[in-house]
Amino acid sequence: MHYLEPLFNPESVAIVGASHHEGKIGHTVVKNIVESGYKGRIYPVNPKGGEILGLKVYKNIFEIEEKVDVAIIVVPAKVAENIIEDVAKKARYIIVITSGFSEVGNIEGEKKIVEAARKHGARVLGPNVFGIYSAKPPINATFGPSKIKAGNVAVVSQSGALGIAMIGKAAEENMGLSAIVSIGNKADLTEVEILSYLFQDDSTRVVFLYIEGLENGREFLDIIRKRPPNKSIIVLKAGRSKAGARAVASHTGSLAGSDAVFDAAFRQVGILRADGLEDGLNWVTTIALSPPPKGKNVVIVTNGGGLGVIAADACEKYGLHLFDDMEVLRKTFQDVMPEFGSYKNPVDITGQAGGKEYKAALERAFKEPNIHAILALYCDRGDAELEDIKNAFIEVHKKYGDKPALYTIFGGEGATSIITALKREGIPAFSDVEDAVSSLYALYKVNERKDEGELEEIEMDEERIRKIIERAIKEGRRKLLAHEAKAILQAAGVDVPPFYLVRNIEEAVEAANKIGYPVVMKVVSEDIIHKTDVGGVVLNIENEKEAAEAYEAIIENCKRNVPKARIVGIEVTKMLPKGVETIIGATTDASFGKVVMFGLGGIYVEVMKDVTFRVAPVAKKEIRRMVREIESYPILAGVRGEKSKDIEAIIDTIYRIGMLVTKFEEILELDINPLIVYEKGAKVADARMSIKVGK
Amino acid sequence: MHYLEPLFNPESVAIVGASHHEGKIGHTVVKNIVESGYKGRIYPVNPKGGEILGLKVYKNIFEIEEKVDVAIIVVPAKVAENIIEDVAKKARYIIVITSGFSEVGNIEGEKKIVEAARKHGARVLGPNVFGIYSAKPPINATFGPSKIKAGNVAVVSQSGALGIAMIGKAAEENMGLSAIVSIGNKADLTEVEILSYLFQDDSTRVVFLYIEGLENGREFLDIIRKRPPNKSIIVLKAGRSKAGARAVASHTGSLAGSDAVFDAAFRQVGILRADGLEDGLNWVTTIALSPPPKGKNVVIVTNGGGLGVIAADACEKYGLHLFDDMEVLRKTFQDVMPEFGSYKNPVDITGQAGGKEYKAALERAFKEPNIHAILALYCDRGDAELEDIKNAFIEVHKKYGDKPALYTIFGGEGATSIITALKREGIPAFSDVEDAVSSLYALYKVNERKDEGELEEIEMDEERIRKIIERAIKEGRRKLLAHEAKAILQAAGVDVPPFYLVRNIEEAVEAANKIGYPVVMKVVSEDIIHKTDVGGVVLNIENEKEAAEAYEAIIENCKRNVPKARIVGIEVTKMLPKGVETIIGATTDASFGKVVMFGLGGIYVEVMKDVTFRVAPVAKKEIRRMVREIESYPILAGVRGEKSKDIEAIIDTIYRIGMLVTKFEEILELDINPLIVYEKGAKVADARMSIKVGK
Repeated sequence: MHYLEPLFNPESVAIVGASHHEGKIGHTVVKNIVESGYKGRIYPVNPKGGEILGLKVYKNIFEIEEKVDVAIIVVPAKVAENIIEDVAKKARYIIVITSGFSEVGNIEGEKKIVEAARKHGARVLGPNVFGIYSAKPPINATFGPSKIKAGNVAVVSQSGALGIAMIGKAAEENMGLSAIVSIGNKADLTEVEILSYLFQDDSTRVVFLYIEGLENGREFLDIIRKRPPNKSIIVLKAGRSKAGARAVASHTGSLAGSDAVFDAAFRQVGILRADGLEDGLNWVTTIALSPPPKGKNVVIVTNGGGLGVIAADACEKYGLHLFDDMEVLRKTFQDVMPEFGSYKNPVDITGQAGGKEYKAALERAFKEPNIHAILALYCDRGDAELEDIKNAFIEVHKKYGDKPALYTIFGGEGATSIITALKREGIPAFSDVEDAVSSLYALYKVNERKDEGELEEIEMDEERIRKIIERAIKEGRRKLLAHEAKAILQAAGVDVPPFYLVRNIEEAVEAANKIGYPVVMKVVSEDIIHKTDVGGVVLNIENEKEAAEAYEAIIENCKRNVPKARIVGIEVTKMLPKGVETIIGATTDASFGKVVMFGLGGIYVEVMKDVTFRVAPVAKKEIRRMVREIESYPILAGVRGEKSKDIEAIIDTIYRIGMLVTKFEEILELDINPLIVYEKGAKVADARMSIKVGK
Repeated sequence: MHYLEPLFNPESVAIVGASHHEGKIGHTVVKNIVESGYKGRIYPVNPKGGEILGLKVYKNIFEIEEKVDVAIIVVPAKVAENIIEDVAKKARYIIVITSGFSEVGNIEGEKKIVEAARKHGARVLGPNVFGIYSAKPPINATFGPSKIKAGNVAVVSQSGALGIAMIGKAAEENMGLSAIVSIGNKADLTEVEILSYLFQDDSTRVVFLYIEGLENGREFLDIIRKRPPNKSIIVLKAGRSKAGARAVASHTGSLAGSDAVFDAAFRQVGILRADGLEDGLNWVTTIALSPPPKGKNVVIVTNGGGLGVIAADACEKYGLHLFDDMEVLRKTFQDVMPEFGSYKNPVDITGQAGGKEYKAALERAFKEPNIHAILALYCDRGDAELEDIKNAFIEVHKKYGDKPALYTIFGGEGATSIITALKREGIPAFSDVEDAVSSLYALYKVNERKDEGELEEIEMDEERIRKIIERAIKEGRRKLLAHEAKAILQAAGVDVPPFYLVRNIEEAVEAANKIGYPVVMKVVSEDIIHKTDVGGVVLNIENEKEAAEAYEAIIENCKRNVPKARIVGIEVTKMLPKGVETIIGATTDASFGKVVMFGLGGIYVEVMKDVTFRVAPVAKKEIRRMVREIESYPILAGVRGEKSKDIEAIIDTIYRIGMLVTKFEEILELDINPLIVYEKGAKVADARMSIKVGK
């Protein structure tokens, strides 16, 4: 049994702050519990005593003769802080409906609540929540609407007002709920634990989660990864526009912004992200009511050419496959086709089609095994056919329940009445065809299970890496010097061409000779960021003489242009031949921790922002998807007859970076810019790294 | 008076094929006309005579003693073809409801209808339409729903079934119509003439147009350009997925596809294109009911933080400006703010807010002149406050009608009842916040009037251009040779570096000397497309010796690799220095005729498809917008401290290409690829052109 079972299926519940006055939250909660048909023991608590709705009121929580599964607190914040310890002694789970905590800056009060609860082994939901509804007991322990229909959709909402409104919306849409949970300030229980319960709950098929942020993104992703194959989740993550407030130094960091990382992380584990409320609710309803499609072939059946064309456009937009085997389409529909009709997909059974024609065409579509999903459209003419059409839809849908079929009825009053009737029968029905197509898309998406692949062990010279990092920490240097960053990459197994840190002309020439010409020299100094601008870089050094001259020139330029800069030395490296410049980076995200980034270098990253992210570490199988995700991927795969670049080398590099930042948490940000990719191999031309120094 | 006035405001109307049997189209049309309260003369025509709904039935159209303004034909296609000439003699406008014409391949029949009508000076609407509704008389001459509310929205639909369903939808949404017109097969009257009427019609404020294609795109754009400032139009153009069927040879052509051109043409004249039906109808309703916003400052007022965040995200997505002057926000809302509320935008008046709080906050928002548009959101709690909230919304909105205010009520039954009540009062109300934000976006967009700028006269050596084209036509050559294409561009005033067509070594050396080294040589042959692949190009020729060698090498390579190719000669041109490669093209679109294209060359056009279009000719002001539209524009404007490239030179080149293809219709397709752009100037490195030969 899941440890949250007593929260979702309590045998007893106390309401601390139960009120005698109708309209008060402390009254509504008691009323909702009673009216929901809850069969457990109910203990209203109020110092005044007496009775509420025929239930005995306990003057004090200690009057209750058992330890209750759930205590609900509805007293004001100050009172709640004072009584929390008593409640914690008498309850396994405490739902703190009361607001006035961290959401208004009262962080101390919230801490006190959680600490007191923990001390006595109790857990807290909230504060600042509207309560919980669970279909199993059943119990409606919320101050929201009293009527809730049981079903297989669980709603988890960070926002209280929105959650309450969703209860109403669910009733209006005839959507059945297995649970609705308000997580509010998430002081103790978060979406992660709630999801871990819902994913093992037999009555829940699909979860709709509304969040504005995640503190524990990694645990969240792990719970999603571990969900059983028959459970789906749709997430509405709001607060996109708040992104980018964090101060960041690296390329990768500034491109990340938290929303791009959310998007990528969700994609990584196969979470479908809804863009808005309406979409999300439509998707959830469709998933709750439909079997998974057995193949990609979608057929549109319509009485109006126009609506069919709009549906076909939407299918193209959402990447749905319109079945186009003319032979099968002809065989399936030809002999049930009215005059002027067309069996081409969209199958147009003409404006004259009534219930009989719809029934015939839909039956054929359901029976044909090569058709895997049906979009039935009806343009309401406002005439008497309506009743027949409605009956045809319901009859055929109930008879053949084995493939997804979504219905769109566009028009007036009559259309609304059909939609309502279909919804009442548990059939996905829409007034807008785009909503139907987007919902079918969602149904396909949630049934595509993702395999990210397995992590493999790789060798790393961990000791060398640790030494470099520790020295920088000791010296209080947040930014590593270029040669240090390169040394770490090299130790991590990334292909870094030979490089030497030299401190005089002799060393410079010796290093250049060892590397082999042409070489590049760059000044190494914490105080010089734009090395080229101050004359700190010389490219394409061809021989000993040029090497000596270059060394002197760099030293002289830097001394003249940045007289106060402390020069550590000069880095000598191989001048790399031309190839495709890519950027590989890593940063530390507030929600997900270490993330890796990939994109093409130069213009592509700076102007087109054509980059992609993953939460690290990430297996090679998933990195392959990541690399293909960028729009400029064809440049790597080879355009205009060019040969493909070494994509495996890119994948290997990203993999190593993911493993590196996972093993060495101290690395906060990292840019390999550029990693030059050839037909064979990929080499680091330049790198930056910053580490965590102090707290 | 507009010549279509008798169609929209007829004094008399005949129904040819009027039926005695209820349920038949020929009966419904008569019934709808009568029930709509039409005050003109109604003449049902049916050989059987008798009476329909108390009206005398004429056995023959010639029995009618006047020439009617409108005759409506509902007899079968074959009969219609036989009687059309008689009807044309007796009617000014003929609405052919009958289907079975070009939409099922009966092109001859349709032609016959139009020719007969034209012969007698009559005009035809249809065939294959559901009729017309016009609020002015009023008259509902359709076979759709009988109840239509008069208002200021005109609907024009190419699809019949969709149009009829829209009548119902309009009633359901309480949207008032000034007219609804079905244009069907558009055999005679098209959307262009219908729009020209509606734009001068006082009762129409906004037009919703549904089309699947346009035959006369230019006339359409001109009508849109000439519309009065107080008329708006929203277009739903379906059939995106049908694009790309046309066989095309050039880059520009293959990138165009018809839908990209539709998008660009609509943008060019400031048409707002709806992506789907629901959006389109929401937009139209909002525009019909709202005053234009006087500035960009949007304020969100909400009782739920979550809904506010979702709205703010949507505002960012649609580019709406959330007012963020904290001082004004504080002054405006602070003293009407409940405990725990926030005057930051979104203004959160908390979950406890009732009618009083909403009224106070909204009144302040309406009164503050720095706030220009209001998004009022309400999360329904399913409690008794509903009635108060509804009254607050209606009262405040009616009192201050001078700025746009859109209402979203999210929740259950209660939410639906508020929305219905607001709609009944003519207030824009939504159940989904994204719909509200997208509608506010549309309201902003349609009120942004576009100025494309003026065309200027430019000099062109038209005679030289004509000569080259005429010779190619005479020789039956569809593709011009490179030097011919360049000569035309030069004659059009485009900057083409000197080039010579040479036929032996001596000419080659002489040309190279004249141009000045380094030069490029390329084979000129209709039979060789990929010149580089066969060794037909030599770059970077530095002196006389190399020039002679290059000439020989090219001739030899081509003879060996493409022995059958007819070699016209070799083109000698200047080897251009590096710059930013762009592509400028023109093609001939089925709907809009000549269009110009612009993008960055190479990878950007081939991989990223980062190009943009305009219908030619196009003024420089609009070309400037066009150039800025591509995503890679920053590369031209200068990135990483680089200087801006010569954007005026690009604009001038596009302008000349637009004028060139407009003056010389024979030029079907044209690519300048690349046009190399420098800090000063832009030069043609290579060009292709194809012309119309024969029919």
